Amino acid sequence: MLSIEKYQQEFVEYLKDHSTLKEPLGLYEPIRYILNLGGKRLRPVLTLMTADIFNGDYIKALDAALSVEVFHNFSLVHDDIMDDAPLRRGKKTVHEKWNVNTGILSGDAMLIMAYQLFENYEPEVFQSLAKLFSKTALEVCEGQQYDVDFEIRNNVSISEYLKMVEYKTAVLVAAAMQMGAIVAKASEQDQHNIYEFGKNLGIAFQLQDDYLDAFGNPETFGKQVGGDIIENKKTYLFIKALEFSGESDKAKLKELYSVSVKNNEDKIKNVKRLFISSGSAEATKNAIQEYTNKAFEVLNTLNISEDNKKLLRVFGNDLMNRNI
Amino acid sequence: MLSIEKYQQEFVEYLKDHSTLKEPLGLYEPIRYILNLGGKRLRPVLTLMTADIFNGDYIKALDAALSVEVFHNFSLVHDDIMDDAPLRRGKKTVHEKWNVNTGILSGDAMLIMAYQLFENYEPEVFQSLAKLFSKTALEVCEGQQYDVDFEIRNNVSISEYLKMVEYKTAVLVAAAMQMGAIVAKASEQDQHNIYEFGKNLGIAFQLQDDYLDAFGNPETFGKQVGGDIIENKKTYLFIKALEFSGESDKAKLKELYSVSVKNNEDKIKNVKRLFISSGSAEATKNAIQEYTNKAFEVLNTLNISEDNKKLLRVFGNDLMNRNI
Repeated sequence: MLSIEKYQQEFVEYLKDHSTLKEPLGLYEPIRYILNLGGKRLRPVLTLMTADIFNGDYIKALDAALSVEVFHNFSLVHDDIMDDAPLRRGKKTVHEKWNVNTGILSGDAMLIMAYQLFENYEPEVFQSLAKLFSKTALEVCEGQQYDVDFEIRNNVSISEYLKMVEYKTAVLVAAAMQMGAIVAKASEQDQHNIYEFGKNLGIAFQLQDDYLDAFGNPETFGKQVGGDIIENKKTYLFIKALEFSGESDKAKLKELYSVSVKNNEDKIKNVKRLFISSGSAEATKNAIQEYTNKAFEVLNTLNISEDNKKLLRVFGNDLMNRNI
Repeated sequence: MLSIEKYQQEFVEYLKDHSTLKEPLGLYEPIRYILNLGGKRLRPVLTLMTADIFNGDYIKALDAALSVEVFHNFSLVHDDIMDDAPLRRGKKTVHEKWNVNTGILSGDAMLIMAYQLFENYEPEVFQSLAKLFSKTALEVCEGQQYDVDFEIRNNVSISEYLKMVEYKTAVLVAAAMQMGAIVAKASEQDQHNIYEFGKNLGIAFQLQDDYLDAFGNPETFGKQVGGDIIENKKTYLFIKALEFSGESDKAKLKELYSVSVKNNEDKIKNVKRLFISSGSAEATKNAIQEYTNKAFEVLNTLNISEDNKKLLRVFGNDLMNRNI
């Protein structure tokens, strides 16, 4: 087993070797650009680590890991167009640096290239990987669609929100790990369980993201604290607060989220107060713990060494403590 | 063997059975819409027919045929966004009926669904189909990029143009046929040859499209005659005319293509005159014949019955005579 940093290094090396430019440059230059913007490479690292944990050769999992990363970046390119986002990792987004058409077409090519990265595996492994990949990719599209739908809906339930989070974020983390298990030829049962581990940890991570947006440390959170509140984003905190509040506080919260307030500091302060007084902040913390526990419970069922179980637990804790 | 009409019917039946709506509707409704706009279903029909010709069961090729059609429609949805096209088959394009974001996301889902349609095949067949599909899909993206690049370039050569036509149009026709051959378990050699048949016929068809745009019968061509000329499209006719013309005619042609003339009728008349006088019209007709002949020559090498060879020849002639 290697350290997280070592997997990251190995992955970035491999990515560089696969970043040679091809014609037409108008199609492939944006792909090289987005793939080399950096990031923690969390998903491909999970693929490599999982292959190792199931006694596979992580080197053999490099193509699957790269596929996951190429898909993830495909979704960023297309999502950034849809959100009209100017920046990604502090640099211009593809559609800003080039144009929307380039973002669409280069994104399409990346989705296809992600499938091509499975071609070196034998037919059975190829089919397993591609099937899981397609199911996951389609769920990510569905999650994105739910996210868009929720923007204009006022009656989003917690279970709907959790499904959106699961599809938009968690299933790719889960699939990244299962792909490592597939390459390592782990049993169906182990594949299923490691998928569940990744899925629950992914949901916990996203709910924590919701929580930290309001209550995180501005020094360490990495994003603007209060960003979701400014954008009137219906996060777990918001939906739970509505659910728990009486008519008067409900009306207050809806009012705060309906007008674009001039003074964002006041808005954030008032919304946070309602998140706390309603019990939503506490409920969110509990949900994060619940999903983290679910993930860790799955670990016990895996047919892997105790050392490897410990590794996954350390990884999970590091992730949730934002040390990765 | 069935008739073309019968394959079309069978395919449309199958498509209908697979057009059930799923949640989220915002994602899947546009997909059902575009897939049911109609069209000749030429590519999927080729997949079914080819499976039959190699003594396979065309019923088994229905999923592969549907995959080809779903991919083709994916490319129409994304291309229509890039071209800002308002209409497709006389109806609103997806991004016009909904919006650009819907067009992007529903298109992405279609590309994934095209891969999923291979999942019922056994692993070896699955891998063959998915590999050919990925190669083809990426070439289609490259062809689209070349097409975009050529719009602002003034030195496009005939070989570059032919490569664009091959990638943007012909390889999907070729792959549609090879997929039928793969499902029918035809030999690698036969697969290769039927691909070449489809590719050459596809190129011939597109060059004929270029030719008919200028010299076709307005009653039967189906598109506006002279449309390419009005849009200053650098077709085979135009590139060859530049190549064959002396300095004076070259300058005239460039002038006609550089200004947006008020009187399109005059422009079309003058451009057509130069297409003829330069010898480009003749050269284009020759090129169409050349690629058609290439396609028919390949037929002789196929390990299929003489009756089936005849069928493919009849199909090729019907296609080139625009009877399909």
